[in-house]
Amino acid sequence: MEIITSLQNNKVKQWVKYQLKKHRDEDGVFLAEGEHLVKEAQMAGILKEVMISSPVDFDLLVPKTEVSPEICKKISMTQSGVKIIGLCEFPKNHQPAYQRWLLCDDIQDPGNMGTIIRTALSFGFDAVAISDGCVDVFNDKTLRSSQGAVFHLPIFRSDLKDVIKELKENDVVVLASTLNDSQTLSAYPTDGAIAVILGNEGQGVSTRLLALADDKVKIEMADFDSLNVAVAAGIFCYYWRK
Amino acid sequence: MEIITSLQNNKVKQWVKYQLKKHRDEDGVFLAEGEHLVKEAQMAGILKEVMISSPVDFDLLVPKTEVSPEICKKISMTQSGVKIIGLCEFPKNHQPAYQRWLLCDDIQDPGNMGTIIRTALSFGFDAVAISDGCVDVFNDKTLRSSQGAVFHLPIFRSDLKDVIKELKENDVVVLASTLNDSQTLSAYPTDGAIAVILGNEGQGVSTRLLALADDKVKIEMADFDSLNVAVAAGIFCYYWRK
Repeated sequence: MEIITSLQNNKVKQWVKYQLKKHRDEDGVFLAEGEHLVKEAQMAGILKEVMISSPVDFDLLVPKTEVSPEICKKISMTQSGVKIIGLCEFPKNHQPAYQRWLLCDDIQDPGNMGTIIRTALSFGFDAVAISDGCVDVFNDKTLRSSQGAVFHLPIFRSDLKDVIKELKENDVVVLASTLNDSQTLSAYPTDGAIAVILGNEGQGVSTRLLALADDKVKIEMADFDSLNVAVAAGIFCYYWRK
Repeated sequence: MEIITSLQNNKVKQWVKYQLKKHRDEDGVFLAEGEHLVKEAQMAGILKEVMISSPVDFDLLVPKTEVSPEICKKISMTQSGVKIIGLCEFPKNHQPAYQRWLLCDDIQDPGNMGTIIRTALSFGFDAVAISDGCVDVFNDKTLRSSQGAVFHLPIFRSDLKDVIKELKENDVVVLASTLNDSQTLSAYPTDGAIAVILGNEGQGVSTRLLALADDKVKIEMADFDSLNVAVAAGIFCYYWRK
């Protein structure tokens, strides 16, 4: 096993760079911090190697580098001391005939983004498409709140206009979630190929995407009429679960 | 209008104390920061007075004290500069025959707690009971993620053992949310008096409360079997919405 003790080591410097989205995108890799996420990444077959400062209680099947706690701390994006960090390659997204989609329109909060992905996977949704204005899915906060679901679900970052066009050509019904001029959720059949557009936390679904959707859908509420976007995603995913 | 410019003013010192739960509980008051929450508190009839450093765009019907931005900053628990802070009294909880309840068992995360309360109100739930181990509902993060729903919904902090006993005596069916030995949600009727126990983020519903519930319920999932507690609350509340 390789051992690194210097903070000036080139590999350490390289991994520190992956704290920034531009370097992750350049090399197609990201960091998974902590035992739980590293284990999930290994199960998903995307873990390439790890740096480790003290033993973990599962078998590592990839190259290990032993490092000092200081090095883990320098590479880590979280406050608390992690003892293992994994380098992972971006999951490959094979696109068969996906039937259930969430489309995220400029979701800003990493906690919401991770929770939406975790929820989509739990209810057997096939894919999540995210607009260019969404928070990065490979930053540490999104990874943590996704509980590793990011490793298992195909996620496409792209202009949602193009995604919607393609979905409609493939007979997927595209619904925009909004309170205005919309049909109630329970009026829809629970089967069939479906994509739901979820809007930005402050602004909702943008006007240009509202215009492209086949229909508008609202979750029926009593009076306060205020839902967190990840909670709304959960209700949609449960309604159209596999 | 009263004007205060000194950080040493007694009223300022008093309000700063309300950053701590023990002082809020002692005096039965809490602080609402920012225009949106102050407005909601006024609508709910619990706003007593405000400190304000620059004008807001709605009519204030309570006594105002003009203060410097530095004073707002000192009293505020958030990072960003708020220009209005309201002193509010704890909402009074009249307890008629409540039919829909959420019971929160040691929910730790203020974001989850606030989102759960916001969701319960939106779907017409009547009340939320929280265990002594739950995060305070009157701290700034919970207030913000509740979007002010805390002002409108009766919230009882108490030993959930006693709450469950009382609910059962009043023919409210008490269900614990858990994946083990539980019935699927869709097997339940969508009407009737219902209380759902939501568990701690890491541990789930505690064994002692599981034993007290009438039944155990699980949200049907595909395979990942992992849901954020506020998302689960959303699915329950939608299912049993008013």
